[in-house]
Amino acid sequence: MPKTILFLLLSTFSIALMQAQSSEDAFKIKKIFDTALSESEAYDWLYHLSENIGGRLAGSPNSTLAEDYTKSVLEQLGVTSTFKQACNTTYWHRKTESEVNIHLQPNVTIELTSTSLGNTIGTNNEKIRAEVIEVFGLDDLEELGEEKITGKIVFFNRPMDPTLVNSFAAYGGAVDQRVFGAARAAKYGAVAVLVRSMTNKIDDVPHTGTSIYEEGVEKIPSIAISTMASNLLSETLGENPNVQVSLSNDNEIIENQTNFNIVGEWKGSEFPDEIIVVGGHLDSWDLGGGAHDDGAGCVQSMAVVEILKKMNYTPKRTIRVVMFANEENGLAGGRAYARIAKEKGEKHIAGIESDSGGFTPRGFSADGLPSFFDEKFRKVSDWFGLLEAYGVTLSKGGSGADISPLKDQGPLLFGLRPDTQRYFDFHHTAEDHIEAVNKRELNLGAAAMTSLIYLIDQYGI
Amino acid sequence: MPKTILFLLLSTFSIALMQAQSSEDAFKIKKIFDTALSESEAYDWLYHLSENIGGRLAGSPNSTLAEDYTKSVLEQLGVTSTFKQACNTTYWHRKTESEVNIHLQPNVTIELTSTSLGNTIGTNNEKIRAEVIEVFGLDDLEELGEEKITGKIVFFNRPMDPTLVNSFAAYGGAVDQRVFGAARAAKYGAVAVLVRSMTNKIDDVPHTGTSIYEEGVEKIPSIAISTMASNLLSETLGENPNVQVSLSNDNEIIENQTNFNIVGEWKGSEFPDEIIVVGGHLDSWDLGGGAHDDGAGCVQSMAVVEILKKMNYTPKRTIRVVMFANEENGLAGGRAYARIAKEKGEKHIAGIESDSGGFTPRGFSADGLPSFFDEKFRKVSDWFGLLEAYGVTLSKGGSGADISPLKDQGPLLFGLRPDTQRYFDFHHTAEDHIEAVNKRELNLGAAAMTSLIYLIDQYGI
Repeated sequence: MPKTILFLLLSTFSIALMQAQSSEDAFKIKKIFDTALSESEAYDWLYHLSENIGGRLAGSPNSTLAEDYTKSVLEQLGVTSTFKQACNTTYWHRKTESEVNIHLQPNVTIELTSTSLGNTIGTNNEKIRAEVIEVFGLDDLEELGEEKITGKIVFFNRPMDPTLVNSFAAYGGAVDQRVFGAARAAKYGAVAVLVRSMTNKIDDVPHTGTSIYEEGVEKIPSIAISTMASNLLSETLGENPNVQVSLSNDNEIIENQTNFNIVGEWKGSEFPDEIIVVGGHLDSWDLGGGAHDDGAGCVQSMAVVEILKKMNYTPKRTIRVVMFANEENGLAGGRAYARIAKEKGEKHIAGIESDSGGFTPRGFSADGLPSFFDEKFRKVSDWFGLLEAYGVTLSKGGSGADISPLKDQGPLLFGLRPDTQRYFDFHHTAEDHIEAVNKRELNLGAAAMTSLIYLIDQYGI
Repeated sequence: MPKTILFLLLSTFSIALMQAQSSEDAFKIKKIFDTALSESEAYDWLYHLSENIGGRLAGSPNSTLAEDYTKSVLEQLGVTSTFKQACNTTYWHRKTESEVNIHLQPNVTIELTSTSLGNTIGTNNEKIRAEVIEVFGLDDLEELGEEKITGKIVFFNRPMDPTLVNSFAAYGGAVDQRVFGAARAAKYGAVAVLVRSMTNKIDDVPHTGTSIYEEGVEKIPSIAISTMASNLLSETLGENPNVQVSLSNDNEIIENQTNFNIVGEWKGSEFPDEIIVVGGHLDSWDLGGGAHDDGAGCVQSMAVVEILKKMNYTPKRTIRVVMFANEENGLAGGRAYARIAKEKGEKHIAGIESDSGGFTPRGFSADGLPSFFDEKFRKVSDWFGLLEAYGVTLSKGGSGADISPLKDQGPLLFGLRPDTQRYFDFHHTAEDHIEAVNKRELNLGAAAMTSLIYLIDQYGI
């Protein structure tokens, strides 16, 4: 047979094979979405996590309940084995919520709705009372200098940029005030900081979240106030720059607690040494039920196994579901997981994290994708042709805080990217409960994750 | 100059011009989104419509309040003129809400959460009590025949298909039971119908919506029960097929009311005879506040003018904002608009309707787009290259009930297609209130509509 004809025949055969494969994959992905939308119990697991257990900060009694519960769900799902990875955490305990008042006149005060920021020291319920200086960023402090700041409460009031369609970008552009505000302001002699809540919504709901002290710098209290309270305080300062504000709170810090990453391992039948890890973080802030952040990511990750099991699927590669510990104020879980993987010489080929809320999935961002001309990129990119019908696209970007410590071990890391508009209505607040989660949106996210894992499992990376 | 060089020069010039245009358009669209997200008052208008006015069925006192209010908003926005188009409507008035009970034993009843379906007759609060026959579609009636149906209450219990990602497709696959159930069941001698609520959610919230009688067929009461009540009734019938159910309600039908389409016209500066119409329907069901259905579409349409005015834009073509009357139970407004346009010989080049809720926009469907090889298609398709960054894509499909009567006059008709997952949690229920609407999602929809109108205005169709 002349070579040309052989080549043509082979090409035709190979194209036919690819099409058959692709149509088989499309069928499987349809089945994954059908199963997720009609049979998944993810929403019920989330109900238990966020409502029966509730907020579960690292080191808290609830964090242990959540570990036990998710381990039992993974066992019931029939993974090959479950195990726990210990890590050392610090329990920041909100003993008495903050109270913040503007003193308009000797006997006229207005209370500002507030919440202590995570890791902050407390005042032992004693009142700190001082004048307030409003700033719009960390750099403003340098400009004002010690003279104008010493003895005052610094009020960080730069809003999230409402024109950024991706609200995570807006969060990223404002959150330095919350994380580093207290440490930076203390250097200039501030006695406390108030921080505008991290949300685009104008309401009276305060948002907590981590704040970090700097070694060698005095620790001062760090408290968030709602966006409505922020607007009111700003207006009040406009009229009367010398108005005084008092604040108090009470927190304790309990070191050397033990939390665990909960791991469910489903051994691969052909390439058991190639590991695909999927997870979310099990800890949450204490104010709400941690439904979107990140109960959603946890139950979606467990649903990957649930859905594939319901389809009688046998994975070729090893799928590991991980409930990571302590993402919110330490990342001890993510670091421990990567350290142990390195020590054991494990080969992680891919990781997927869901930590952006249980909203309608819009796509995945991939961290570590080479250029458009690379074979690996084209392979992954082709897969997303199958996910397009579900509105799920591929972009470059980060993945997730818990899996990113794995990066130098070479896996391709993905982050689920749901619609971002509502996330910061609930993020780190008392409103992050099950009512804020739509069951279909949650299940669609689980289906998108399962589909991507199915494709990685079938074809490797 | 040789022709080739001239051609090359002209081509280069034309490509450069196109690129400049496209970059100018991208800039304008960015500005549209920025303005919508940071300055639009659409959410406040929606608050007034859905909370201060509330449900506004055609012919109701509230429907007139809504007409007056939106006319005044359009005037404040500074359109060239506003006018009203009268249409004849029928006011279906829910006097006493339905009551439905399962009679388990002589003294044991269970109440099923219910609501009268739109246009249904009432029982004058008298109880109808009968056995129930459960069916899963209109065709089941033929199979059962008169003998098994006569004297009974027919219970339509086919759920929306949860595996359909687009929940409107699932609605379309189930809603024939609600619309035609009573008329079809009456032909076989049924005394009333109960219909499973049109939602994927399993909860205790009943969904109303239109039902249509057939001329010459006896009118029997038509009542929706919640999905939880439907499951309960179905289980009860499984255990005891002869169980009796009683139902009652009281409604009145007041004919020959007058409603108005409210039109705000912004005259074009270059091609005033080319009309681009954008709208939603002002009427809503009576149970909730009509926030998503379709207050959202109304305020988004008004926001098109608001946003372009804030940008100091001068339209080349005439932009008409229309609050259509009576979409829910008659479509008198949409029909009147098309009839008047035809009588006046007006030239509508395009129409956009928003009537799928105020959720994150995912795209537009276009009705009347020719094939992929057609110039018009390529033109419109190119525009969507500019909207891709905002997650807004083009598909073929329907547009909206109110603008579709215009179709035979030749305009290209678009329907805004937002994310569909949450729509049927609220649709036609007492829960369709402002709390169910996210301000940013609403404004993004307005921005998408404004962007498309800007492009149509710039380049025509």
